[in-house]
Amino acid sequence: MTTVTAPEGSEFGLQNLPYGVYSVGAGPRRVATRLGDTVVDLGILLADLPEAEAFTASTLNPFMATGHERWVAVRAAIAERLRGDVAPEALHPLSAVTLHLPFEVADYVDFYASEHHASNLGRLFRPQNPDPLMPNWKHLPVGYHGRSASIVVSGTDIVRPCGQRKGPQDPEPVFGPSVRLDIEAELGFVVGTGNAMGEPIDVADAERHLFGVVLFNDWSARDIQAWEYVPLGPNLGKSFASTVSPWVVPMLALAAAKVATPTQEPTPLPYLAMEQPWGLDVDLAVEWNGEVVTRPPYKEMYWSPAQMLAHLTVNGAPTRTGDLFASGTISGPEKDQRGAFIELTWGGAEPVQVAGEERTFLLDGDEVVLTASAPGPDGTRLGFGEARARILPARQA
Amino acid sequence: MTTVTAPEGSEFGLQNLPYGVYSVGAGPRRVATRLGDTVVDLGILLADLPEAEAFTASTLNPFMATGHERWVAVRAAIAERLRGDVAPEALHPLSAVTLHLPFEVADYVDFYASEHHASNLGRLFRPQNPDPLMPNWKHLPVGYHGRSASIVVSGTDIVRPCGQRKGPQDPEPVFGPSVRLDIEAELGFVVGTGNAMGEPIDVADAERHLFGVVLFNDWSARDIQAWEYVPLGPNLGKSFASTVSPWVVPMLALAAAKVATPTQEPTPLPYLAMEQPWGLDVDLAVEWNGEVVTRPPYKEMYWSPAQMLAHLTVNGAPTRTGDLFASGTISGPEKDQRGAFIELTWGGAEPVQVAGEERTFLLDGDEVVLTASAPGPDGTRLGFGEARARILPARQA
Repeated sequence: MTTVTAPEGSEFGLQNLPYGVYSVGAGPRRVATRLGDTVVDLGILLADLPEAEAFTASTLNPFMATGHERWVAVRAAIAERLRGDVAPEALHPLSAVTLHLPFEVADYVDFYASEHHASNLGRLFRPQNPDPLMPNWKHLPVGYHGRSASIVVSGTDIVRPCGQRKGPQDPEPVFGPSVRLDIEAELGFVVGTGNAMGEPIDVADAERHLFGVVLFNDWSARDIQAWEYVPLGPNLGKSFASTVSPWVVPMLALAAAKVATPTQEPTPLPYLAMEQPWGLDVDLAVEWNGEVVTRPPYKEMYWSPAQMLAHLTVNGAPTRTGDLFASGTISGPEKDQRGAFIELTWGGAEPVQVAGEERTFLLDGDEVVLTASAPGPDGTRLGFGEARARILPARQA
Repeated sequence: MTTVTAPEGSEFGLQNLPYGVYSVGAGPRRVATRLGDTVVDLGILLADLPEAEAFTASTLNPFMATGHERWVAVRAAIAERLRGDVAPEALHPLSAVTLHLPFEVADYVDFYASEHHASNLGRLFRPQNPDPLMPNWKHLPVGYHGRSASIVVSGTDIVRPCGQRKGPQDPEPVFGPSVRLDIEAELGFVVGTGNAMGEPIDVADAERHLFGVVLFNDWSARDIQAWEYVPLGPNLGKSFASTVSPWVVPMLALAAAKVATPTQEPTPLPYLAMEQPWGLDVDLAVEWNGEVVTRPPYKEMYWSPAQMLAHLTVNGAPTRTGDLFASGTISGPEKDQRGAFIELTWGGAEPVQVAGEERTFLLDGDEVVLTASAPGPDGTRLGFGEARARILPARQA
């Protein structure tokens, strides 16, 4: 038996204990947590627990389905056992494992919960409108369904998508690789337990359904999106890929990160009303070819995750274990807090400096990394790992 | 051993042989076909085939995943064996079984492929626009992702959804049961084998990926939809429920139903171009409380299913076994061919007679049944079963 510790000040100390899925070599996928730079196999660490079999699964879904009470109990058991001696076969250096998509994605919805982002996009896409926000925006968390199959784990290369685009000056649409490939820096919320059809989740209960949080990069081909999105919303401009971080930070670890949302005025309808809607004080950073170009602050998000889930189900729509809903681009009030390059460069009109070059949208070979950090208990900080990917050239027919 | 036959002129003779999933009493779900009014267990009928295990599964997905060559071989084997003697334990009267959702839905996309429907909705939703069709409509099959979890099988009651709505005269949005609950009569196309991420499906190969066709009723709360849908498309106005028929009619059965689509002008971009785009000569009928109120003709659909699948993947988006894409509302040029009540009653302004009453949108207790029929070989006809559901009152909080 051996002991495992995180370095002093680590964002992956006992205050975090995220969940992920790993493999070693050609071995099977199994569920793990992370302490410092050590991956701890939960199938071994928790072999005597009633849900032990869930930790030898290839996704987090079986464990997530056990529900909130077991999430609490298992988290306590992990912390307790990691304070004592651990079987050495449960431990792997982070550098020696492959991390996988941690959960099987059921339905995926992307919201649009940042007032700064929605206002910026309104100004850019619909400059003729006097109010950049649509009339519905402050009454409901606007969102749309996306493609679950194209959600991939950090480290997966992103092939530049092809598609139709038509600029205002073009007489006809043209087909080819996107020339306005962008990121959207977001958080994703993983639904651990869903609701039956016809039985909405009350906004006050929503948090008990939320298993955890991931970093989420919703890659966006702005030229494809602009041509296709009226009237039924984004489709191919988004459906080619989204990147998630491999570690799911438990909601149970985020108590110290809860903060009030910005004031919601007008008061939301009763089904969305909370005594105090809460957001999360998560500071994101976006690295573009190794340089941090923007720092989106999640605490600026207008709608609470609980309100998003309540809204999603208020019509009786069912959710399931593995549902993922993302926040939409996180943008703060300052220019260097904007979570998409279309905002940061104002539609490409105001290039930014990246490693000494003037840049607007993504070029082939570019690498983007999202990271984030949030307050933990007792002055600690929590890390979220990273959502990293490189852009590969389009495959031409 | 016994023989099983379909009555003379049956739409479920050997020319059809649809696939479904059934159970008897508390027994397990298993895969079946239908001959006349007899359900034939394929796990028993085809017990010696290499994919026999797939027929004892609770969905069609394992069989669909075996691919086009095996679909051809299995269809031939079924027809051959049903011409001979069959083990009586393989046979159940249709009335003695429960039919289930035949496949596990992976991603679900709804298209908007009827020019008549898109034009009618344009006139109703955006009367200020001179052209009811958006500029993109004739260049690409417009579509959006929907909620897979709320797709249910025929016979499942539909609870009237609650949500936000705001009429043009309302000072603020209100919350409550939808007062403009509608149908959309569509066909759904089931993807049997998908494509890897980054590897689009060529329009010429698309048909080999298509396993079969179902009836699809995309229930729509028009008041919720109208308030929420700008700019990201429909969400809660659609996500509460869609109904599919329990029998998947194989693409292999539909050779005689193929017809040319309406002329596509302007010529689609090369990735969508087909020597002759094909649609299907499927005649739908919509019964409202037992009375046929409209007969939407699928042959009027502008975009071909092959073009829809090619478009869906041209950006590299992956599809999977069990993906479902629906056509969007089927409407013909005539008033009594419109596949949604919002069109049939022109936004409620022109009520229709239903069993002696003037009606516009759906009332609690209403029952809607979609049926359809298509040409088979040698002058036969193919049936699609039915997509039936009754509207239950909203559950009030």
